[in-house]
Amino acid sequence: MKRKIRMGMVGGGPGAFIGGVHRMTARLDGKIELVCGAFSSDPAKSKSMAEELFLPAKRCYDSYDIMFEAESRLPPGDRMDFVSIVTPNVRHFDIAMKALDHGFHVVCDKPMTFDFSQAQCLHKKVMESGLLFCVTYNYTAYPMVKQAKAMVAGGVLGELRKIIAEYSLGWLAAPNAGKQATWRVDPLQAGSTACMGDIGTHSENLIRYVTGLEIEALCSDLSTFVKGRTLDDDGSVMLRFKGGAKGLIHASEVYTGEENRLSLKVCGSKGSIVWNQETPDELTVKTNDAPMQVLRRGWAGTFPELGKFTRIPAGHPEGFLEAFANIYNEFATAVDARLRNATYQADFPTVDDGLHGMLFLKRVIESNQSASKWTPFAL
Amino acid sequence: MKRKIRMGMVGGGPGAFIGGVHRMTARLDGKIELVCGAFSSDPAKSKSMAEELFLPAKRCYDSYDIMFEAESRLPPGDRMDFVSIVTPNVRHFDIAMKALDHGFHVVCDKPMTFDFSQAQCLHKKVMESGLLFCVTYNYTAYPMVKQAKAMVAGGVLGELRKIIAEYSLGWLAAPNAGKQATWRVDPLQAGSTACMGDIGTHSENLIRYVTGLEIEALCSDLSTFVKGRTLDDDGSVMLRFKGGAKGLIHASEVYTGEENRLSLKVCGSKGSIVWNQETPDELTVKTNDAPMQVLRRGWAGTFPELGKFTRIPAGHPEGFLEAFANIYNEFATAVDARLRNATYQADFPTVDDGLHGMLFLKRVIESNQSASKWTPFAL
Amino acid sequence: MKRKIRMGMVGGGPGAFIGGVHRMTARLDGKIELVCGAFSSDPAKSKSMAEELFLPAKRCYDSYDIMFEAESRLPPGDRMDFVSIVTPNVRHFDIAMKALDHGFHVVCDKPMTFDFSQAQCLHKKVMESGLLFCVTYNYTAYPMVKQAKAMVAGGVLGELRKIIAEYSLGWLAAPNAGKQATWRVDPLQAGSTACMGDIGTHSENLIRYVTGLEIEALCSDLSTFVKGRTLDDDGSVMLRFKGGAKGLIHASEVYTGEENRLSLKVCGSKGSIVWNQETPDELTVKTNDAPMQVLRRGWAGTFPELGKFTRIPAGHPEGFLEAFANIYNEFATAVDARLRNATYQADFPTVDDGLHGMLFLKRVIESNQSASKWTPFAL
Amino acid sequence: MKRKIRMGMVGGGPGAFIGGVHRMTARLDGKIELVCGAFSSDPAKSKSMAEELFLPAKRCYDSYDIMFEAESRLPPGDRMDFVSIVTPNVRHFDIAMKALDHGFHVVCDKPMTFDFSQAQCLHKKVMESGLLFCVTYNYTAYPMVKQAKAMVAGGVLGELRKIIAEYSLGWLAAPNAGKQATWRVDPLQAGSTACMGDIGTHSENLIRYVTGLEIEALCSDLSTFVKGRTLDDDGSVMLRFKGGAKGLIHASEVYTGEENRLSLKVCGSKGSIVWNQETPDELTVKTNDAPMQVLRRGWAGTFPELGKFTRIPAGHPEGFLEAFANIYNEFATAVDARLRNATYQADFPTVDDGLHGMLFLKRVIESNQSASKWTPFAL
Repeated sequence: MKRKIRMGMVGGGPGAFIGGVHRMTARLDGKIELVCGAFSSDPAKSKSMAEELFLPAKRCYDSYDIMFEAESRLPPGDRMDFVSIVTPNVRHFDIAMKALDHGFHVVCDKPMTFDFSQAQCLHKKVMESGLLFCVTYNYTAYPMVKQAKAMVAGGVLGELRKIIAEYSLGWLAAPNAGKQATWRVDPLQAGSTACMGDIGTHSENLIRYVTGLEIEALCSDLSTFVKGRTLDDDGSVMLRFKGGAKGLIHASEVYTGEENRLSLKVCGSKGSIVWNQETPDELTVKTNDAPMQVLRRGWAGTFPELGKFTRIPAGHPEGFLEAFANIYNEFATAVDARLRNATYQADFPTVDDGLHGMLFLKRVIESNQSASKWTPFAL
Repeated sequence: MKRKIRMGMVGGGPGAFIGGVHRMTARLDGKIELVCGAFSSDPAKSKSMAEELFLPAKRCYDSYDIMFEAESRLPPGDRMDFVSIVTPNVRHFDIAMKALDHGFHVVCDKPMTFDFSQAQCLHKKVMESGLLFCVTYNYTAYPMVKQAKAMVAGGVLGELRKIIAEYSLGWLAAPNAGKQATWRVDPLQAGSTACMGDIGTHSENLIRYVTGLEIEALCSDLSTFVKGRTLDDDGSVMLRFKGGAKGLIHASEVYTGEENRLSLKVCGSKGSIVWNQETPDELTVKTNDAPMQVLRRGWAGTFPELGKFTRIPAGHPEGFLEAFANIYNEFATAVDARLRNATYQADFPTVDDGLHGMLFLKRVIESNQSASKWTPFAL
Repeated sequence: MKRKIRMGMVGGGPGAFIGGVHRMTARLDGKIELVCGAFSSDPAKSKSMAEELFLPAKRCYDSYDIMFEAESRLPPGDRMDFVSIVTPNVRHFDIAMKALDHGFHVVCDKPMTFDFSQAQCLHKKVMESGLLFCVTYNYTAYPMVKQAKAMVAGGVLGELRKIIAEYSLGWLAAPNAGKQATWRVDPLQAGSTACMGDIGTHSENLIRYVTGLEIEALCSDLSTFVKGRTLDDDGSVMLRFKGGAKGLIHASEVYTGEENRLSLKVCGSKGSIVWNQETPDELTVKTNDAPMQVLRRGWAGTFPELGKFTRIPAGHPEGFLEAFANIYNEFATAVDARLRNATYQADFPTVDDGLHGMLFLKRVIESNQSASKWTPFAL
Repeated sequence: MKRKIRMGMVGGGPGAFIGGVHRMTARLDGKIELVCGAFSSDPAKSKSMAEELFLPAKRCYDSYDIMFEAESRLPPGDRMDFVSIVTPNVRHFDIAMKALDHGFHVVCDKPMTFDFSQAQCLHKKVMESGLLFCVTYNYTAYPMVKQAKAMVAGGVLGELRKIIAEYSLGWLAAPNAGKQATWRVDPLQAGSTACMGDIGTHSENLIRYVTGLEIEALCSDLSTFVKGRTLDDDGSVMLRFKGGAKGLIHASEVYTGEENRLSLKVCGSKGSIVWNQETPDELTVKTNDAPMQVLRRGWAGTFPELGKFTRIPAGHPEGFLEAFANIYNEFATAVDARLRNATYQADFPTVDDGLHGMLFLKRVIESNQSASKWTPFAL
């Protein structure tokens, strides 16, 4: 890498949680620098954020339209290389389309769009543009999730049988859950699903990434436990995968007392694994004919390929930010390869994952409204 | 109690697992003595077991028919008070009916009968006889399960939202899983379900005991993962309870690597709890507005009523046998009360639980064969 | 075994904790029957306990002197085979000596005697009598402790380096800790140490059993944290073993909040293990060149020799009582072998362990009073 | 903050572990920028590192002498504000003294110096200079360690009784443990202690930070388990604190199978706490009269003051780097306050902690060589 990769940001103004996460994790490895932003639809708030970030005033823009215009007119040695989109998902589509129109690579938060038709349109656009597009399904960037994927792919678990993903949060357990929560349960901003779109989609992506299985049909039951809401705040999904494996997804944002409990269990004919996001450095492996093993990041028994997704030795805990930074690190490496006309086989979630995630949400909603048990998955 | 309560046993011959469990747990508290048995359909095996148990030869019978006849002719000061039935479930019905006919109280292993119609018939018989009848759903006899029940009943969790019961075993993961496994996957001996009848029924009973919720409708998906089997060895069930709570049951006997992993999670509007059978002395309680608590048997914060279900102080682990013995202890106390014409409000699973469990199995099988999403539960 | 082994008991009257434990655990496997007792120095209390235990009145004695006399005059087919001594330790010596004089085998609670000279005298007596003598250091009877011992003996850990035993209880944290606590901190009943004699001795015995190491020298620091006490309620000991290994013991009965937290860590040149009494079915094994393993009772990777120390399959938790019962089971088997003039290599703690434990207490007290760093261990 | 704080670095060339940690953690929050460095005594290696870090060639220096000279001649708007010293500890003293001479604030890795007399000299220098000086005892920067400190200070645990700190690493378990290990066991580079100087010092600092207790006397036993070494690779220390509390430190770098297992247990008359570095987001609190609590970073029950030491919500794990970054964040805030002539009560380890740590090492070594049990701690 000859120089740092230059990032612009849309969204992530004062008080926004996920914007700060994107900035910290883009910064961690020293390969990306934030050079510009349109942090808020309110220019004063955007300016205030730019100052806090030590950005020059001229690189703080009043809107993303202006930003894309202005940045694309800067000389290549100055202008941003990619944009990071961290707004509520109702606005992802327009921002992403325009960024691509101006030739910028894109990092976009999940779920990718407001609905499935937008996702199809955006997917087509990305394919045509040839630009890099990343959707931040961050949980698949944990080293021990990659270990799990490699073990499944390597046949360690045998033929897959049952997959169980649970995601429980307590933060929406009460009617008033604060500012961050408001837009997530508002149909105008979040779309036709709240809980499934916010966290169920992570569960689906995690299953897909680790197992490589394709859903054949699903059967869902969504709930709205807190009065006054119109969207789901909890849901269950039974899954049938091609090839015969079965699955269960539980996702709930009204699960009182839980912090951010995402877990994945995968069982096959030879063994099974358990991973919990709240203790991400561990992967438990169980078989019938050997003692239970607890694989730990950086210790013996993990695949050497994981090395590039971990920064410090075993026993020095890595967490959410380090995993998230793995996505930015892969993305920066891919951008750098483009700048050098090189190729790089990057491991980050793409527009395909984003599209797939939106199809999952569509099918879950359809199934929830159906009297039939099984809703076929494929288009 | 003036004397020990006298137990007879049907089943539990050499090599049988559950028979030994019933004997150890009946013995633990010194209130029950085994006085007779028909341990095997093979008289030689039955005799061999009787010798191992230091039983006099004359109290070892060649069949349960003979036993019930002979024992009922003994003077009240000698004859058995109750029979413990520990055969495969295909024979429970006939044995239990005859025991009741001869005026003996009954302890019966689960599932109660071969099918639902037998269960209805047996239930009617028990009601008419006025005799004591216990079905050994042993997992509800753990002190911390009773703590969970009391907390739910006391409103600690608020209005219930989501209940998740998982039961994973690896012992049938391979085609040949040993003698104990054979009858459990044989339709002629196990009935129309294997996994659900063996362990799914425990999950349902555990949910029912702890939450008191009634199932309104369910949606199941059973699987047979090991080739050559005709019955289910894995299953998922989505539940809708009266009042609006939702539930999930996962049960699998082909879950490679798991020993006997039964867990229950209950979430309500005020808090949630987690209990795992493999660490039974603990109950984790989580809320949004206080630190996570780990309640431990015998320690501060548990209900004093639990005292009679625990034998040793906190930090001295109790396990499966102690919980199972709680059922025998309650049953013996109830029998003793009958002997004294007293009343005792016993806490053990009854013929109602047994009947309910058989209805659950019936509905799960019906739903599995149905194209409709929801199968109503009530008769 | 042709008949049950017959047990008498001294101590264990109403309200006594450890007496009940001895009775339950002697009863569990159906090989031992309680036939007589002198349960209390108060004959009325003794009688009341005998009734509760369904013992015939004539086998309830007013004192152990009377019991030993009377029982030894009964015909061999009736009289007790061994006595279980469960009084405070100030009385162990006299009871045990008299039992041996009358030809009875002995099970004795720990610590074995009031002081070291009694222990030497008793040891000599046992050697001369040729009778069986067991001291109930119960924690070494857990299956996974035996697994640990076998792994150390088999060289799995390599050359031993560091051994850490911690034993923390909160029950004496406050000045008034109830009736059970009173005699344990009373010099006239407990001897010259409270905490070390009550629980430190378990730590030492556990180290000795698992590692086989011999202490070369030790350095102790005893504390009395609760005002008004004269004996230790907490202590630390640094150990040097023959051959170069080092050790640490922490024992505290004033460790607020802990239930019965006994743990053992053993590190060698090839690996290390951790065992916690509060999760006794697990043994964690760590090495530098393989993933961490969690060995679990009854599952793959445990030594088949453990089979006779476990009653139910993996995942069905066993606990304190089952481990304690292992001692009685081994003892009963040894008594039975004697009855048949056979030999049996039993695995229970003997008078040697009891003597060694008393020497440990003597050295810990000497070191605590010494200005020199190291107190040699051997006589 | 008007601008980023500017950092120079001495040490941290290619392949150095701790240098990379300092850079990542200084970078994480976007308040510090690395502007110059003398990364290696080999100028070519230093240059290579500078390029990797996108530093301009002119700010990469051949030695720290040259760097301090050159930087101090730059205008205030350009030159570095502070230097981060990440070399082996034999060189800390000279570098730190010269940095202070040139008016630069200092961040220095631990242990602070090669021996105690250097530490005294450096302490005096810092006091005279009035400059900011930080020693990176990073483990005290975990939020839940700060929670523990606040709880102790607030009297939650009552009067302190026993403190146990354990630090076990397996990385030096074998003779050849790689390049990073070599200098740590070399007396010429590491000083008169290896294990105690590398990790025992963290244990002592952690105890001091959390409890505020002062050591009155100590008694140590150091070991060298791996042949060919001259310095300690393992050690035990018994502690007596002023006021009557007792303590134990176990530190080992030859503890096979352990990754980086630092734990702290503190017991008082009202309660006790446990913290493990490998699960740093949790703090377990136990009392005799309430259920065990597990406090978790960001969740209910933690002190609001911890907010500035945590970046993301509960359930999104933070780890080693985030804690380490807390030190840089506090240091940067303190430097910024200086730049604005403001005062800021920073929470980072100072030259006092560094001096105290060196006195601890001195006393541990003295005690190890002494035949007396107790070595007084104070000068």
